[in-house]
Amino acid sequence: MAVYTEVTDADLAAFLADYDLGPVLALKGIAEGVENSNYLLHTEVGYFILTLYEKRVEEKNLPFFLGLMEHLSARGIVCPQPVRMRSGGALGRINGRPAAIVTFLEGVSRSHPDTKSCASVGEALGRLHLAGADFASSRANALSVDAWPHLFAEVFARADTVKPGTKALIADELEALARAWPRSLPRGIIHADLFPDNVLFLGDRVSGLIDFYFACTDDLAYDLAICLNAWCFEPDLAFAADKARALLSSYGRARALRPEEVAALPILARGAAMRFALTRLVDWLNVPPGALVHPKDPCEYLERLRFLRNVRDARELGFEP
Amino acid sequence: MAVYTEVTDADLAAFLADYDLGPVLALKGIAEGVENSNYLLHTEVGYFILTLYEKRVEEKNLPFFLGLMEHLSARGIVCPQPVRMRSGGALGRINGRPAAIVTFLEGVSRSHPDTKSCASVGEALGRLHLAGADFASSRANALSVDAWPHLFAEVFARADTVKPGTKALIADELEALARAWPRSLPRGIIHADLFPDNVLFLGDRVSGLIDFYFACTDDLAYDLAICLNAWCFEPDLAFAADKARALLSSYGRARALRPEEVAALPILARGAAMRFALTRLVDWLNVPPGALVHPKDPCEYLERLRFLRNVRDARELGFEP
Repeated sequence: MAVYTEVTDADLAAFLADYDLGPVLALKGIAEGVENSNYLLHTEVGYFILTLYEKRVEEKNLPFFLGLMEHLSARGIVCPQPVRMRSGGALGRINGRPAAIVTFLEGVSRSHPDTKSCASVGEALGRLHLAGADFASSRANALSVDAWPHLFAEVFARADTVKPGTKALIADELEALARAWPRSLPRGIIHADLFPDNVLFLGDRVSGLIDFYFACTDDLAYDLAICLNAWCFEPDLAFAADKARALLSSYGRARALRPEEVAALPILARGAAMRFALTRLVDWLNVPPGALVHPKDPCEYLERLRFLRNVRDARELGFEP
Repeated sequence: MAVYTEVTDADLAAFLADYDLGPVLALKGIAEGVENSNYLLHTEVGYFILTLYEKRVEEKNLPFFLGLMEHLSARGIVCPQPVRMRSGGALGRINGRPAAIVTFLEGVSRSHPDTKSCASVGEALGRLHLAGADFASSRANALSVDAWPHLFAEVFARADTVKPGTKALIADELEALARAWPRSLPRGIIHADLFPDNVLFLGDRVSGLIDFYFACTDDLAYDLAICLNAWCFEPDLAFAADKARALLSSYGRARALRPEEVAALPILARGAAMRFALTRLVDWLNVPPGALVHPKDPCEYLERLRFLRNVRDARELGFEP
């Protein structure tokens, strides 16, 4: 959303001395990602993204994220690929912040994805899960079922100011989720934030996946549930069954779902809606007055949650056996 | 600094239907300019900047700005060049905002320009003034000597909260400036905001001038005074005589100053310092609490003003006859 840390020409020259990217032709701060400072970097060799990691991304996790993008790139997933320094490292420092350079991807994200786009993203997600299977590192999901009560505690007192009934809805659902959350589904690397913002298209083809800074190890079907929520509701928040069918069936062609994953889909979708409702509530209730950042409306995810809590069977979510 | 208006893929497709730029390969919001929403647009034809004009830029002035950039480009000044639609127009609309596409320039701005950079910018400014001489349109400078008392009125009550003595300094200086402001110097097109941010370099060479949205018709030497203030003070606000000598002498080689312009240089520099001190005070005192925009410190320009009010002769500002 914003560039937080300024990079001067002198900072950049010092940083690039460790790379073989040739002279700088341009550097522009770009409004991408809310967690980091991102720059479009144009050098004689090509176009890149320079990222300075701000405090919300823990430095100890950076080797995981960068290693994952490299692993996935090597397996044909088009995602930002870290550029290595002459020393072999991919992580340096600018202005006291950890910093890395990744390749610049072509493509434009879709604000209102159609059914074809949903099919494309389903396939891309399935391929991502397969490609991540042999990635050696792992990272716990810090925003999964065990974390939700802590997030709720942060917003409990003011939750009903956002919409009356929010507190009761979340409290009820947290209980249900804790009781029913699946604990033995196939696990692996998940993107964990594959919203339309993070998928680039050229025509109907997915041209790249970006923003891997929530990636972690968790249930693969949970990642699918996150996508289902993010891609398969209309702007008026009606569930788009046709889009869901397209997304789930294309995913299934890339990676077949096991029966226990299908059975868990409704509860996973409820959990995914809870996760985004909660983090959006936290951001919404903590935005400084007059700030230029526009936090995302938590109500969109509370609405999904209200719909999903009444779903009992994956077929209601567009799954076709 | 920020992207204010979102452009969806559908908005963009509709807008680009009037252009011959081929399919879109990428669109990234960029953190450039504080007045408008800017996007880096990559199409099959090349890289461009897409600008949506926000409310601080008056729509009626846009043909002046776009026409000027086109005029200057045609005369060898490297600046963003408006891209025309098939209809011949350069100004369209996206999301209710006036919007235009200009060429993307190579180069990186200098945070701490050295003496050589000051020489380069002096020459670039002289060439800009010559190239603007036969531009047919004109636009009054809305931020010149007659506007300053109005800006002062906006901040009068709180001026001393920024730094004690500010109110008295500005009041005294406004009187002196009104009395001594030159009224018959050579006029023409001035950039009016040629700060280091707005000058791109490749090596020691100026590769482009950007952000013409303050350009107007005014005294050419006033533009030079704005540059002198912006480029020839050290970070500790000491006057950098060597940089000033370099800037003024290179300017003079491109366009010789007349004796009356040389004589007016001290008062013009005081006026230029006043102009930026006042607009920065207005922004500083009107920033919403907690906002992510960091307004520029008005004290930097109040400090320059304190120095400049004691200057009586252009030679003290680095002018060499």
